[in-house]
Amino acid sequence: MSYDPSRFAPLPDPPYYAVIFANQLADPAPGYEAMADKIFELAQTQPGYLGAESTRDAGGLGITVSYWADEASIRAWKAKADHLGAQKLGQQRWYQHYTLRVARVERSYDGPEGRSL
Amino acid sequence: MSYDPSRFAPLPDPPYYAVIFANQLADPAPGYEAMADKIFELAQTQPGYLGAESTRDAGGLGITVSYWADEASIRAWKAKADHLGAQKLGQQRWYQHYTLRVARVERSYDGPEGRSL
Repeated sequence: MSYDPSRFAPLPDPPYYAVIFANQLADPAPGYEAMADKIFELAQTQPGYLGAESTRDAGGLGITVSYWADEASIRAWKAKADHLGAQKLGQQRWYQHYTLRVARVERSYDGPEGRSL
Repeated sequence: MSYDPSRFAPLPDPPYYAVIFANQLADPAPGYEAMADKIFELAQTQPGYLGAESTRDAGGLGITVSYWADEASIRAWKAKADHLGAQKLGQQRWYQHYTLRVARVERSYDGPEGRSL
């Protein structure tokens, strides 16, 4: 357990957008890791991509939050991911359940220096 | 690995608010589990609390997203958590790093039935 800065996303000035994706991975989830890597690489090259934070527990419950400059960049990324077949495979094979929310970030801070909400 | 509905938050009609908290837990983090349980119980009794999704990997990287009816309910919850000393202990003992963002949820869906973003 040690702090890895690469696992935290930057804190640009709001407003910007978050895609909050919580999901229960099936076991097994054939092909999931390779596609997840591909989608993440793709996101990083997309206009408007600001960063992501992602983790998954031993039971397969994962949360990934990706951050975007605006809604147009989210839509463009989704169209590219769909082209790879990611959404279809996710629905058919990998996710027992998921929730996805698109939210507009209004304020943010980091720590542990401590700033008030 | 199996789907546990209690680990997913409901999908109320937007708009509502998300508090996105990503954190790297220190090792050891004395007293953390007990306080986390207490804060979660407290949240559930707070006006405006809509649910939460939370997970942490073996390396201690956790993401908790809690959902709230409005900003006033987030502030009221924060004031209560501060009263327990949670924020101070988090800053002093538990978190090597964290990011916290407050965001307004604008749309949401769940799956794997499949609906478009």
